Amino acid sequence: MAPAPSPLAVALPDLRPFGGIRLAAAEAGIRYQGRADLVMVAMPEGTTAAGVFTRNKCPGAPVGWCQAALKRGRARGLVVNAGNANVFTGRAGREACDTTAAAAAALLDCRPDQVLIASTGVIGEVLPVERLTAALPALHAALGEDRWADAARGIMTTDTFPKASVRKARIGDGEVLLCGIAKGSGMIAPDMATMLCFVWTDAKIPADLLSTMLRAGVDTSFNRITVDSDTSTSDTVLLFATGQAAHPKLPKRDGSNAAGRLLRDFAAQLDSLLLDLALQVVRDGEGAQKLIRIDVTGAVSAKSARRIALAVANSPLVKTAIAGEDANWGRVVMAVGKAGEPADRDRLSVGIGGVWMARDGAVVPGYDEAPVSAHMKGREITVSVDLGLGRGRATAWTCDLTHGYIDINGSYRS
Amino acid sequence: MAPAPSPLAVALPDLRPFGGIRLAAAEAGIRYQGRADLVMVAMPEGTTAAGVFTRNKCPGAPVGWCQAALKRGRARGLVVNAGNANVFTGRAGREACDTTAAAAAALLDCRPDQVLIASTGVIGEVLPVERLTAALPALHAALGEDRWADAARGIMTTDTFPKASVRKARIGDGEVLLCGIAKGSGMIAPDMATMLCFVWTDAKIPADLLSTMLRAGVDTSFNRITVDSDTSTSDTVLLFATGQAAHPKLPKRDGSNAAGRLLRDFAAQLDSLLLDLALQVVRDGEGAQKLIRIDVTGAVSAKSARRIALAVANSPLVKTAIAGEDANWGRVVMAVGKAGEPADRDRLSVGIGGVWMARDGAVVPGYDEAPVSAHMKGREITVSVDLGLGRGRATAWTCDLTHGYIDINGSYRS
Repeated sequence: MAPAPSPLAVALPDLRPFGGIRLAAAEAGIRYQGRADLVMVAMPEGTTAAGVFTRNKCPGAPVGWCQAALKRGRARGLVVNAGNANVFTGRAGREACDTTAAAAAALLDCRPDQVLIASTGVIGEVLPVERLTAALPALHAALGEDRWADAARGIMTTDTFPKASVRKARIGDGEVLLCGIAKGSGMIAPDMATMLCFVWTDAKIPADLLSTMLRAGVDTSFNRITVDSDTSTSDTVLLFATGQAAHPKLPKRDGSNAAGRLLRDFAAQLDSLLLDLALQVVRDGEGAQKLIRIDVTGAVSAKSARRIALAVANSPLVKTAIAGEDANWGRVVMAVGKAGEPADRDRLSVGIGGVWMARDGAVVPGYDEAPVSAHMKGREITVSVDLGLGRGRATAWTCDLTHGYIDINGSYRS
Repeated sequence: MAPAPSPLAVALPDLRPFGGIRLAAAEAGIRYQGRADLVMVAMPEGTTAAGVFTRNKCPGAPVGWCQAALKRGRARGLVVNAGNANVFTGRAGREACDTTAAAAAALLDCRPDQVLIASTGVIGEVLPVERLTAALPALHAALGEDRWADAARGIMTTDTFPKASVRKARIGDGEVLLCGIAKGSGMIAPDMATMLCFVWTDAKIPADLLSTMLRAGVDTSFNRITVDSDTSTSDTVLLFATGQAAHPKLPKRDGSNAAGRLLRDFAAQLDSLLLDLALQVVRDGEGAQKLIRIDVTGAVSAKSARRIALAVANSPLVKTAIAGEDANWGRVVMAVGKAGEPADRDRLSVGIGGVWMARDGAVVPGYDEAPVSAHMKGREITVSVDLGLGRGRATAWTCDLTHGYIDINGSYRS
């Protein structure tokens, strides 16, 4: 019995075959019944790969597996299961990764360390790996270039809608594609937000450049969103480049950053795609009824602005006020103050929906409440904070905190 | 229409006159109607005082007032209003403090800077100070030594029960009393938790010693509790010593710490009283149905243990799981990992209700679920975390996160 889609849901974009990427999803019965819970993706020889992972100190076994496998920067396969995160499962967890990679590698005719693995779901239960390996041969046989939507659905847990995003980018006179899928709706916080995100391109890019661009893109997307301040043990973002598109060859590194210039549009499109997927995760925040954007300006530095934006985004009092459609800017002041960053009460300004309600440390006399009230009733809320101290700015996104969050998380495991 | 008391509420202790302290509460109509919202306390000549305040960078005007007034370490009066926090009110806020202190000082025949002020309630609205000063003469006329319960009720905002605690302490062959009142139920977080707490003793203790003992006591009580990770702009703990009791005189400071030895029992009783009041605040956490204690052992240091304990206590996923009576130790693992403190997944153990469910990085095979399930249905939940790394230990307290929290905070201001 699937829950109703989030009122903030967006539709899947048009997802077309590209880059020699083949996908399939199947019901392995790992935890869920009557829905796909296992996804396999096959990539052509020569595919490069990079990853960014949770900073949680108790990561799942698949995170450790991927970090080791990515040292060579190559990938031929990806196996993702939903329903069991294979976290805090000790030696059995590591063995499950070994077994999965070996089984997939045999089918894909590659080395086990060319198979990346991700798991999402309940923590602390041993992954029934035999169900997973039993399902792999049929999954492999079903691989097809047009199964993007199946893959996006197969990695969902408490998500209420599948998430994907596509972009085109130019590399010189060549055009390349990017396509990403993501899942995540709770246990979302800065320092790696979505639980799982996978992005493919048909460009030909060395792994080290992929890694640099991925880190930069994650920093302004997944690391700027928060649903509940909790950080998953499994957060994983992987970027694969299959090299099937025709575009000018990237020059060898010679210190001139010629490759960086050639990749400028690609990097911008990657950033845009990652932000799109990150915001889809917020839109599916557990119980979310409103998408909240927090713009901070005038901080002493960009880093300080980011901390303040996330302190506001993580404040349960701000999030419940917005759920109640209450333009309670006083709680924003409180949240700015608790960030621990430089702030001067008497230079601080707070606005909602583009109307400055408080300026220079006091309420704006007679500000127009009508547009603010109308804005609060909408689905997308904007909170502006100006510190009046410097030029640091940052934006963060979150969702409101509602009864739905309590419903979902008070009964998830049982 | 007062909300029903928290199911975790405790009764007021027996509160008797002592120390020459006189109190009164009145309806000033500052925000609430039909209930006392203004409290005045008069203390005899010679009373010493110390305070600890919020670290929020946007504190209310009364916090600044008290910090300045306490430089002399003397107090004769305290004025507290509920319903309006006088925060983010600019110059008008500071003038309201001046006006209040001057009016109270005239009635109490003392200097204005011997009057301490605290305000709690909504942020960002100008305090109608004329209603406050209009009520002061009658309030002064009503001062009496037996009005402790009235004072405890008069400082409440969203509290569902009044909070007080009493202790006896020995100083040499003399016996002294301590009595404290507190209010707070939301916007409660480490770095000053309860919004307001006032403690009196009839001992004769210099302000600097009061300050040292108060800081230590707050660190192991109010700074170890959290309801929602939000930090108030008004958090204030004040300690007054009226010097009316008979006990051996404290020796002058001579580097021997003779005074410290004489005050050992007093300091222990003060710590105990502050912890009692802090836990009453958690018991009144907005929407709280369960009191949660988190014991962390085996951390690399006490500081690290404290951070881990508070990360668990602040995790919405842990708090909603406990609300749902789900012994979801996997979420505890996640919260330990996100604290950013040294942790080794494979040495970590987690227990609930005294039963170790996970040990050394994996579930304990065949652990007895029955006592854990029974424990989860109770009002007081204990979570144990052992890092297996060192000897650092700490305890933190919080409450569960329920629909009640959303109800209260989604409609507080409107």
